Amino acid sequence: MNYCFGVDIGGTTVKIGLFQDNGTIIDKWEIPTHKQEGGKYILPDISKSLLDKINEKQINKKDILGAGVGVPAPIKEEGIVRGSANLNWEYKEVIKELHELTGFKIKTGNDANMAALGEMWLGSGKNYNNLIMITLGTGVGGGIIINGKPLIGSNGAGGEIGHLKVNYNEDKHCGCKGQGCLEQYASARGIVNLAKKKLEKTNKKSILNKGDITSKDVFDALKDGDEIAKEVIEEFGKYLGYAIANIAVIIDPEIILIGGGVSKAGNVIIEYVKKYFDKKAYFANRNIKFELASLGNDAGICGAAKLILI
Amino acid sequence: MNYCFGVDIGGTTVKIGLFQDNGTIIDKWEIPTHKQEGGKYILPDISKSLLDKINEKQINKKDILGAGVGVPAPIKEEGIVRGSANLNWEYKEVIKELHELTGFKIKTGNDANMAALGEMWLGSGKNYNNLIMITLGTGVGGGIIINGKPLIGSNGAGGEIGHLKVNYNEDKHCGCKGQGCLEQYASARGIVNLAKKKLEKTNKKSILNKGDITSKDVFDALKDGDEIAKEVIEEFGKYLGYAIANIAVIIDPEIILIGGGVSKAGNVIIEYVKKYFDKKAYFANRNIKFELASLGNDAGICGAAKLILI
Repeated sequence: MNYCFGVDIGGTTVKIGLFQDNGTIIDKWEIPTHKQEGGKYILPDISKSLLDKINEKQINKKDILGAGVGVPAPIKEEGIVRGSANLNWEYKEVIKELHELTGFKIKTGNDANMAALGEMWLGSGKNYNNLIMITLGTGVGGGIIINGKPLIGSNGAGGEIGHLKVNYNEDKHCGCKGQGCLEQYASARGIVNLAKKKLEKTNKKSILNKGDITSKDVFDALKDGDEIAKEVIEEFGKYLGYAIANIAVIIDPEIILIGGGVSKAGNVIIEYVKKYFDKKAYFANRNIKFELASLGNDAGICGAAKLILI
Repeated sequence: MNYCFGVDIGGTTVKIGLFQDNGTIIDKWEIPTHKQEGGKYILPDISKSLLDKINEKQINKKDILGAGVGVPAPIKEEGIVRGSANLNWEYKEVIKELHELTGFKIKTGNDANMAALGEMWLGSGKNYNNLIMITLGTGVGGGIIINGKPLIGSNGAGGEIGHLKVNYNEDKHCGCKGQGCLEQYASARGIVNLAKKKLEKTNKKSILNKGDITSKDVFDALKDGDEIAKEVIEEFGKYLGYAIANIAVIIDPEIILIGGGVSKAGNVIIEYVKKYFDKKAYFANRNIKFELASLGNDAGICGAAKLILI
């Protein structure tokens, strides 16, 4: 029996999974991300956790095929991070350092690509080799899988679809300093901003007129028949659906997966997004399927582990 | 010494090249595309031409590594065309049929991807493994190379960037029946349409106010300081430059190559496109290079031949 580790390094915790190479999860756990002193403890902590685990499970080191590692930063196949504010890393040779610490074969990828690969291996993307995973959370992340492999990009910045420009008339700035990025409308915060803007301009009554709101409040209000909420979600669906039509005409994927915290609203997301996608999709892309992602927070460790197997 | 053929099937002629595997072109020639009777003569004609050529050159059949074939239609790796109006084909098993006729290993790709691969092998894309080739001709074609291989797409329709929607307010239709496609503004015909629209709405004097004009006329007028021509090329640059910024944030390529008949206008194309690209590019994509393609009509045969070598 062969095993591999999937490691998903986040700003608060490191998620780790131990997998059999057939996709069975043997164990999963978390350790804190120690970011002090330029994040220099992060990789040693991970190393210790991996080695402790094979002791605990009495697994022979030679049966470990390797450890895949997802990081919240652009990273190319050579495994070097050139700056990650989330981890306090300035320059980190992840593959080299973690291989020296553990003796394992190490592969790396960015977290959005890892999530896409995880869904392809064990989630809603099973049986597909060409897919796009869109993560709607605080921001909008994208992972693109072509012929079973992540699109990394020449700067490690492939699939950054949250920064697709979808509105050339926007005067507010995105976190990337651009204007009119998809993330400004389709992230949790983006949806809240769309709602606030509508509420300011209308005299219509709305459940949402209550001070601080979340994107969940907007979807809940939609379910309750709130007219403003419906307008907001139509707008959200339009930005995201139109954007997906443009991504599809470039990538020609089989399936689009939508995950992240916002996607907890359920199939209503797909309903509104697909409605607008259909209006603008190129004829060759009209048969593309849409599904909600199914692995939640485990997608990252699953994809990182899969990286060792491809 | 090993050899390979590159075949570029067009609606009027089939271009063919005989290459050494080091990239030296031994010979190139054309045969007419016989489209009658459902295009059933096209592949037999090609087969005869290839076999005649190795006789003429006294090349041993076992030294031919294979023949790559570019077709003007979506096609996947299995080599089946499901309809090409340009060739009168309804259903054609290109790899199977041409292999049976010639005995050669056959690989296939669509013409835009072949042009991109050709430029990577022997043209302006040399030394790059991740590039986007944009062909500005009657239409706008796109070929995307990732890690040295063409992005084919799950329907054989990857990289159809001419049908990226760049204007959601367009009321006229593209050939694909969509509205606001890049091709409606950045093709030869698109540029003429932009000029006509401007001329209708202005009282300014312009060299272009003379009945039938071509895209070349617009670029010539720009060189002569014509104000309307400048406005048109600014608009062209804006549509194409903004579109490339969005393609780049998805693909993260090293270089953008611009070819096709319109690109004969020269570096002025890159000047105007890059000006607008820079305004909207994601920060990680700002170092992307822009170059004019250099192989002209030979790009297709070069890329088709290269397909045999990857």
